Amino acid sequence: MRYKDENKQEAIINATVKLVNEIGFVASSVSKIAKEANVSPATIYIYYKNKEDLLVSTYIRIKQKMGEAVLKNFDESMPIRDIAKNIWFSMFDFIDKNREYFQFTEQFSYSPYSDLVDMDEVEKIFRPVIEILLKGIEQKIIKNVNHDILVAFIFYPIMTLSNARLCSGFNKNDSNIETAFNLAWDAIKL
Amino acid sequence: MRYKDENKQEAIINATVKLVNEIGFVASSVSKIAKEANVSPATIYIYYKNKEDLLVSTYIRIKQKMGEAVLKNFDESMPIRDIAKNIWFSMFDFIDKNREYFQFTEQFSYSPYSDLVDMDEVEKIFRPVIEILLKGIEQKIIKNVNHDILVAFIFYPIMTLSNARLCSGFNKNDSNIETAFNLAWDAIKL
Repeated sequence: MRYKDENKQEAIINATVKLVNEIGFVASSVSKIAKEANVSPATIYIYYKNKEDLLVSTYIRIKQKMGEAVLKNFDESMPIRDIAKNIWFSMFDFIDKNREYFQFTEQFSYSPYSDLVDMDEVEKIFRPVIEILLKGIEQKIIKNVNHDILVAFIFYPIMTLSNARLCSGFNKNDSNIETAFNLAWDAIKL
Repeated sequence: MRYKDENKQEAIINATVKLVNEIGFVASSVSKIAKEANVSPATIYIYYKNKEDLLVSTYIRIKQKMGEAVLKNFDESMPIRDIAKNIWFSMFDFIDKNREYFQFTEQFSYSPYSDLVDMDEVEKIFRPVIEILLKGIEQKIIKNVNHDILVAFIFYPIMTLSNARLCSGFNKNDSNIETAFNLAWDAIKL
């Protein structure tokens, strides 16, 4: 039964992503999402309190998947620059393989629904990354600045460069991704 | 008459921004926008072909206002680092004074409507900025990399740091804005 439940939840999440990307947050009703996922609206209400809960849970679920992909080969005994570079490449790879998820989370981040997210839950997922930045500050490898500033240079440019509308001239091959990483590292290194 | 027309167009633009921020792109109809702007739908159709044209024109108009604000004290005889720093501070200031515009353009950039924008028109607005980066490359002050990469580090972090949802720990005072600029400059400088 549990296996079946997980399949259903996955179908609901994917239907939510597909519909929101196509018609937007406001027009995506629970009944339309149910139809897209091939389940009854009542089934959705078993797992989620309401539409807001479904949207927020979808966002968190995608962040979890991203966290798993990005931290898969995480080895904190490696030099900090190498750890950051691995995360940088894994993040580009995850976004490239999951364009629909990326489009959903980008829209979500700029929508009023993002106010409903428990940010502690998201931060928990990426905690190992923050720990590495803090260790880098302690070891005087990374600039001692607010960690929102560090993250704005070491991770968010991945989102900007992955957005074909913003950066149509950036061809996402390994060589360009590494060039961009060098800029990110130069920004945060001491 | 012209004065009156401009006032009306401004009212339509502002109503579009307000409504889209409140209820989203899909739910914002021309008739609702007309009501919000206190004009008839027919008046909107004098200036704009349809809803898509209205949304795209609103986006371009905001980008023009941003361009005017940011390039107000533009002096290409200054050192390139100083020019970049002035633009950095003016951009934070513009966003801070125009939160509604910022919220609209951020959502717009991640919506399917952004495919309808003539990117040449937007690039034209910020052309002096790109020219400065190219001059910096020529003078071996700035790294010789694709200009989408440069822009991802010297300008887009402003958008990330201005988004309170993404960077709640970043307090936008002059000292923090300058600290963040130093990271941006370290990223792009040779």
